[in-house]
Parts: sequence; C-alpha cells; structure tokens
Amino acid sequence: MMNSAALDRPVALGLDFGTESVRAILIDAAGNQLGLASRDYAHGQITQSLPNCDVPLPPRYALQAPGDWIDSAAEATRAAIRDAELDAETIVGIGVDFTSCTMLPTTLDGTPLCELEKFRATPLAWPKLWKHHGALEQTERMNAVARERDEPFLQRYGGTIGLEWFFPKMLETIENAPEVASAAEVWLEAGDWFVWQLVGGPAASLTRSTCQAGYKAMWSATDGYPSSDYFAAVHPQLATAAKECLPGVMRSPGEPAGGLTATMAERFGLCQGIPVSTAIIDAHSAVPGVGAADAGVLVMVMGTSSCHMLNATTAADIPGIAGVVDGGILPGMFGYETGQAAVGDAFAWLRRLLGLDSFDSLAEAALRLPPGAEGVMCMDWMNGCRTPLMDGSLRGAFTGLGLAHGPEHLYLALMEGSAFGLRWIVELLRDGGAPIDRLVATGGLPHHNRTFVEVYADVLGMEIEIHPSTQGPAVGAAVLGMIAAGSEASGFSSVSKAATAMAGVPDGKQDIVRPRSERTAAYDRLYNEYRNLATILAGH
Amino acid sequence: MMNSAALDRPVALGLDFGTESVRAILIDAAGNQLGLASRDYAHGQITQSLPNCDVPLPPRYALQAPGDWIDSAAEATRAAIRDAELDAETIVGIGVDFTSCTMLPTTLDGTPLCELEKFRATPLAWPKLWKHHGALEQTERMNAVARERDEPFLQRYGGTIGLEWFFPKMLETIENAPEVASAAEVWLEAGDWFVWQLVGGPAASLTRSTCQAGYKAMWSATDGYPSSDYFAAVHPQLATAAKECLPGVMRSPGEPAGGLTATMAERFGLCQGIPVSTAIIDAHSAVPGVGAADAGVLVMVMGTSSCHMLNATTAADIPGIAGVVDGGILPGMFGYETGQAAVGDAFAWLRRLLGLDSFDSLAEAALRLPPGAEGVMCMDWMNGCRTPLMDGSLRGAFTGLGLAHGPEHLYLALMEGSAFGLRWIVELLRDGGAPIDRLVATGGLPHHNRTFVEVYADVLGMEIEIHPSTQGPAVGAAVLGMIAAGSEASGFSSVSKAATAMAGVPDGKQDIVRPRSERTAAYDRLYNEYRNLATILAGH
Repeated sequence: MMNSAALDRPVALGLDFGTESVRAILIDAAGNQLGLASRDYAHGQITQSLPNCDVPLPPRYALQAPGDWIDSAAEATRAAIRDAELDAETIVGIGVDFTSCTMLPTTLDGTPLCELEKFRATPLAWPKLWKHHGALEQTERMNAVARERDEPFLQRYGGTIGLEWFFPKMLETIENAPEVASAAEVWLEAGDWFVWQLVGGPAASLTRSTCQAGYKAMWSATDGYPSSDYFAAVHPQLATAAKECLPGVMRSPGEPAGGLTATMAERFGLCQGIPVSTAIIDAHSAVPGVGAADAGVLVMVMGTSSCHMLNATTAADIPGIAGVVDGGILPGMFGYETGQAAVGDAFAWLRRLLGLDSFDSLAEAALRLPPGAEGVMCMDWMNGCRTPLMDGSLRGAFTGLGLAHGPEHLYLALMEGSAFGLRWIVELLRDGGAPIDRLVATGGLPHHNRTFVEVYADVLGMEIEIHPSTQGPAVGAAVLGMIAAGSEASGFSSVSKAATAMAGVPDGKQDIVRPRSERTAAYDRLYNEYRNLATILAGH
Repeated sequence: MMNSAALDRPVALGLDFGTESVRAILIDAAGNQLGLASRDYAHGQITQSLPNCDVPLPPRYALQAPGDWIDSAAEATRAAIRDAELDAETIVGIGVDFTSCTMLPTTLDGTPLCELEKFRATPLAWPKLWKHHGALEQTERMNAVARERDEPFLQRYGGTIGLEWFFPKMLETIENAPEVASAAEVWLEAGDWFVWQLVGGPAASLTRSTCQAGYKAMWSATDGYPSSDYFAAVHPQLATAAKECLPGVMRSPGEPAGGLTATMAERFGLCQGIPVSTAIIDAHSAVPGVGAADAGVLVMVMGTSSCHMLNATTAADIPGIAGVVDGGILPGMFGYETGQAAVGDAFAWLRRLLGLDSFDSLAEAALRLPPGAEGVMCMDWMNGCRTPLMDGSLRGAFTGLGLAHGPEHLYLALMEGSAFGLRWIVELLRDGGAPIDRLVATGGLPHHNRTFVEVYADVLGMEIEIHPSTQGPAVGAAVLGMIAAGSEASGFSSVSKAATAMAGVPDGKQDIVRPRSERTAAYDRLYNEYRNLATILAGH
C-alpha cells in the first residue's frame, strides 16, 4: 500500500550521522514522516585497536572507518524507502548532518588515506571522531601562540580553540605521524567528505560547509581561515598544509553541493542528479529540524550536554559566546552557538551519587520546595563551563548546605543551577545585540524530564516550547535537502517556509511550558546570588 | 564480694548530667572504675507541653524539671554503690558536671520557681535546657548593643554572644514572662543549683562555677560580669536582675563548694560532710576525664559536634577563640574553648544524603584516594562555623565536583574539611600564644571511626592519642571530686597528679595515631587552598 501523503508532494531525504549509527528519514513537504531507518556502523567507534590489525590505540583515541558511513547510509536509505513504500522519483533532495569535528586526510581523488594499503595500520591515517582527544598538547600550543599574537579570530570563539577542533587534529598528525601528513592531499570534515562522495567532482571544487568551517576550523566569511603567519608560528608544516590541502568552495547548509552521481544513485536506490545539500553539524541541524528558521529563536538541544543555537540578522562579537558564523546554520543569517557542558550527564551523576535509581521519587518533594532550594545553590560545572566562561577546567559545587537538607534540595539546586546558567547565556546574547523572542527545547531530556523545563521557564521568566520531535537533526537534514532541491522542485519560496511546513508545530498545538510569575520574581533575586557565586568560584 | 581495689584506696563519685540522663561513676585513686549506673530523667526534655498541664510549648522551647536531677542522681548513686559493692565511707568527694547553659530562676532559699503552685503552668518559670532556642530576638539585641558600645567582653568570645547563653535566656523571661522575672530572687546555672542543693547554705554564699560563668555568662576573673551600663542599655530590668539576683561566690571546678548535708547524704546513701566540688560544664569535664591536667594538651571531645579544650599558663585574647577563662577548667590555669559545630552530625547527614546505611563500604575506597579527594573540597559548615568564624549562619559546601567523582570523594572531602577546620584552630591557638604539645581525642566518634582520626593526624601532621574512656566527662567529675576532697583524704598533692593517676593511660599503652609524612606534605599545600576557599565562601 502506497502512503497517500507521498503521492502528490515532494519528499526529501535526511541523513543524520551520529557517533554510533546513521538515520535515514523521509519527509514530505507537509511534514509527514514517511519512512525512517537506522543502521549501526560496522566498526562503531574505534577506540581499542584498528580493524583487522593488532595495533593497540593510545588512550583518548576515537577513530572511525569511512567505508562504514557509505555502507550504513546506503542500507538505511534503502530501508527507509521500503518503509515508506515510496517511489524513489518523488525524492527531490538530500540533506546531510554529521558529527563534528570528525575529520580525515584523503588523496586528491577523495580516497581516505586509511584505505591505502600502506596506512591501514597507522592510527592517525584514520578519521578522527569528534571525541578523539589525542591533540591535548597541540591545542594548548595553538592557544598559547594565538594569545601571544593576539589573533583576531580568538574573539569569535570566546578566546579559546577547542580540543576537538579541526586544526589541532591536523597538527596532531603532522607531529605524530609525519608520513601520513606528507601523503595527505586533502584534509576535510567527514560531513564534507560524504557529500563529496555523493556528488563527485574534483577536489578543487568540493563543497565545504560554512557550519563546520565556522564553528570548528576558525573560518569566517570575511577573514577566511587564520593567517599563514599564525599557522607558521605554530608549525611550518601546518602553514603549508593549510595553504595546499584545504581545496574547495564554501557553502551554507541548504545550498546545493551538486547532484547525486550515477554510482551513488545506484548504491542508495535513488535517482541520479538529485541535489545534495551542503553538510551541517548534527546539533545545528536541529534548528531547521524544529522548524525554527527565523531570527530570534533559541533552539536548545538538551541531552547529556546542551547546545543552543540562534540565528540573527546581524553579527556581533559577544565575549564568552563560542561562535558566530555568517551562514553557519542557515543561508543568509548569522548563526550563534552556545553550550552547557553537563546537563543530562550532571543529572545522571547526581542520581548515582545519591544512590537513586531515578529522580521520580524526588521530583515531587523538589517541586514543593520554594525557589532557591532553601539556601542550597549549585554550580553545574561538573564537566567545565562552556558558555560563557569557556573554561573546561572549572568544576562544580554545591553551597549553602545545612543539616536539614536532603537529596531533593540537591536535585532542585542542580536544575536551578543549570537554568541560571542558561539565563546567563540568554542575557549575554540579548545584551550583546542578538535578541531572543522564542525558546524551543528539543533532544531527549525535555521529553523525559518536564519538571526541568518548568524550572527553566520559571528562572528565565519566558515560555519554552517543547518540540515533539525526537529526530530533530534528521528532520533538519531533510529540510535542508528540500531547500537544496530549489523552489521549483520543492514548492517552497523560502527556507523559513520550508522549515515551518516540514518541521514546525501548528499554532495552538505547541506544547508550551509557561513561567509561574511568583517563582520568577524569586528567581530574579536568586539569579544575582548565583552570578556572585559564579564569580568567586571561577576566580574571574 | 568486696572489690579488692576499693579496700585501701580513697574513692570519688562523679555525677555526669547529660541531656536525657545522669550517670554516677565511682573511681578509686588508682583509676579503677568500681561502679557505674545511669538513670533517665523522668520528664526527659520538655519540648511539647509542661508536666501535668496542657499548656503547649512554642517551637524552639526545651525545658527540664529540677526535681528529676535530684531524683535521678540519688538513684544512680545508690545503684553505682551497689554495683561497686562498696562501703560508702570510702567515698571521699563528689564531683558534678552538667550541661550548660542550662539555667533556672529560684527563690532565695533555692526553690525553683516552677515548683511554686502559681508558676507550674508558666513555661518560662521552668529551667531552660542548653538547647532551648527561645531567645533569638534577645540574643540579637544583646549583640547589637554590645557591638554598638564596643563592649570589651566581646573580645573574649570572638565578638559574639551565643543564643544558648545565660543572659539572653534571662532577658527572654524578663520580656516574655515579667511575672516570673519579678518573682525570681536568684538566677543560676543548673550545675550550680544542684551543687547548692547538695551543700546547702544561704544564697549569698552559694558557689558558682567559673567554668559556667566564664564560658556562658560573659564573666571574667578580672572584670566580672558585663557592666550595669551595658545591661541597662539592653533593658533596665536586666541591669537590676544582674545586680540583685546573682548572689554567690566564684570558684574553679575542683575547688570545694562545701560538705554534703545530712538530708542529701541520707537521700544519696553517702556520708554527711564529704566535700562537693564546684560544678563544671560536661564537655570541659573531659579534660580531667582523660587525665589531661597539664598545660598544652588539646582535648577534643568528638561527637555530634566537637568541643576542644586547652589549658595554658597564660591568657591571650585570640580573635575567633570563643572563650578564655581564668580557672575555667581547672584551678590555676587559663582554660581555652573552641569548637566545630557539625562533626558526627555532618557524617550522619552525608550518609543519609547518599542513601547509605553506613560508611563502612566507602571507607576503603576513600582511603585509597590521594589527599585532596581528587579535587573535591568540603566546607563542613552544615551547622554554621563555631571556631574561628563564630558565625552560625554560615553553611557548608562541596566544591571541585566532576562527573568522575563518587560518594567516596565526598566522604574523604568531609573528613578532610573537618581536619582542615581543626588545623585552623590549632594554628590560631599556637600563633596566638597558646601552644599545643599533645592532642587527645575522646568522645564516641574516635572509637567508631578510626579512619577519621587518621585523616586528622595526616592533616595536622601531629600524633593523636585516642583515649580509651567512653565516660570522659563522668570520669572528669570523679577526678574533680577527688581534688575537692583535699590532699589529706585523696593522697594527691596536685590536680595534675590526681588526673594522671585516675584517668591517664600509662606510657606505652596509649593508642596513638601517627601522621603519614607523605600525606602530611600534600595536606600542607591543600590547607592553603582550603583557607582560600573558606575566605571566599565566608565572605570575610
């Protein structure tokens, strides 16, 4: 039986590459989810030893196999089409979101170096997963040199280059596997590599995503990458590689990178030539994925950590805000990214600490407490502070502890601490010239813990919409695929219209959590105490 | 069968008045414990309503019935004598320790006002137990006036009059039960009242303890009580009462208050005329009770809270040290008192918080951790900070928390936080001119948690003796009874010799916990971090 919704509406394919698996989703122009399939990567995360090889990996290594991405995506796509009982001809575009910065070295024709016989047993020839932390030394050095030279790009990243970013990972290979670095003709993000594989063409014209480049490779639309002088001051070969091994053109997510090749069309069961969107980082894909394609909507992807994204019509350098990228999330807008390093992770930690199986039994007692948890205050820096202090070495605290306090006080205080941290971010963006009109929560956490979203709303004094989708990034990729298909094929005259139609929730049907004014009034006062405590504990 | 040790040695009776019960102990001059008996007070703590009366008590009230003290002490004494199979004639002296400040109003002949028909239903005519917290307002006002007038006595108490002290409790009655205050002819500590009952005599010559007066009633050997001007500035009637209703003479614990009356000898089963020592506060009684009658020994009574006492040959005003009293603990020496407000209480709280039945399963894991609990630090102010910050409103904290930390980190950090607090006190005393040569731990906690004493030794870099007695205050009372009996009857030429013989542990038999030098070295560094954290969290 053919799905009736699919008959007269164009359909887009979204491919959502996570850490362990890829999801393929098929969504039509009215937002109907027609098919969904997921496939694990055959080699998953490679952290112990290389495939077919006994070479043990050092600690902090996390690699992947590029063949897995193609194999799993092709299988998932075919399964989703079967699930949708769909004619492949109705699929008009493909969008791709990917973990980042996951990156690899290739030859000029796009062959990953790890697939060459001579590098199969060389760990640093393999793609480094976003969470690969082998570049500790390199990151430190790049930061030290950048600060010494007062490099202007630091401004855009709150003053710090991240351990998981592109150039530290490149430098790690240059220093620790020089034979691999010498053989590398192209260095690129895995998302860009995958899109390149789908659309083919020479390295010189491969499409790189402004999203990945802007948030993970210190690139900006006005200044490009950091200067050769800076790279040379770090390592001469880094300057050479940055100059010679980063071919391609920059495009925003949603802009087409090219048409699907015959080979790939055959492999995926799709039609040759359909447009493929420029890649986007998985978290950022949640912005179109919840239908938030307008300026002023803060999309909060809440999971083990939280990533917040905001589109704005103007650019502003706001101290403490990690990244603002022209076209970084959607074409024609400035994308801001902020984050909280421990959210779900912090709850899981507290739950284990208190010897609890779940917080269910505590939630009621916690909510009966007045705002401020009767004096207990929490700094939720158990995994460092991302925005706005950009200091991974900071650690968490509970203060104001008295003999009458129980686990419910710690639980409420942790929720409040997280909410105060978010309020700090929202105020910073607002005061810095990036106003926020709407808050949309997505990811797993808001669905599992509504109490937490209620505390957020109370502390912020703002309504929060909980978006129903549990597949935000995948849906976002499909929206970008539809946009890449162009207005004629998709029927949409703007990005905003496509996102709203495919991923938005109709007015009146949103799940809105409203602030309780008497609690908000109390939190206005407590927020100042939180900021004072943050100041003294951070030593800033 | 007669106990052979009792035949040829004088014996002293110690009466140890706690919150719920009294213990009677019989000890001979060689330190043999011949008899022990305990009796609960018939009315215990009176917190809900008065005996034989429906008058409900306000919150924070804690009263006692004076008749209970006599009844229970007489019964316990008779039982102890039976237990010892002793001839009462071998008992040469009686010592008394008592909770403090537990106090009451009486008539000139010593009759408690609550025993008069007209005041039986008036709560504030009853003895107020040490933990009675009805004088919140009065304490605040007395502190405010004292600070405004820059009263010199404040110096001796770290700048703060305590909520549980003598004059706030008096003022509470003056303001809230004026009819009782008008009828009161004598105000006095329960310990002094009990001794007065034993020895009889007119109010004008009743013996008041320098210990109670010095630590709880702002009295000093050189200045006496606070000035009439100060009292009048607080409340005119307080000045009048302080002038007219505090008859008696001041004596140190160990100095005889008089001889046992015939009536009381009959009631207790003792011989008429045997000397009764001036009373001592229960905690302070642990000093002679562990055989520590020399200068330079810090006796730490570790229980739900900790009280530390030190005798010194000279007086010094040390900021943050709550009380230094001439003859406050033993005759001829200056007694210093410091304290930590939550010790066993804080452990019990953390255990409940973490959902544990005991710390047994954590102790091993905690001790495997390096000093500093891998970054976790604890401020153990869950019940305020007594010494040296004298601020009951301060609250506790855990800082440096990361996702990898478990309950064992919090447990070690709490032990370390308590130990750092003790080191602060020891350094303050030493730097202020009251040197400490020896540390003796007593009370219930050191016997239940040796790990904790090990952490104390490591952090302080000093040996700590765990005294074997679990009846420190009672033994101390017996030592004071022996001293009061005089050298002829007791055979002791000095207080120090009596305490050592009756309560000391012979050389080579002490249970000594030694510091581990490599851990002490680490703690020297961490202690500075602790002090920095204390400074910022206390806002001092």
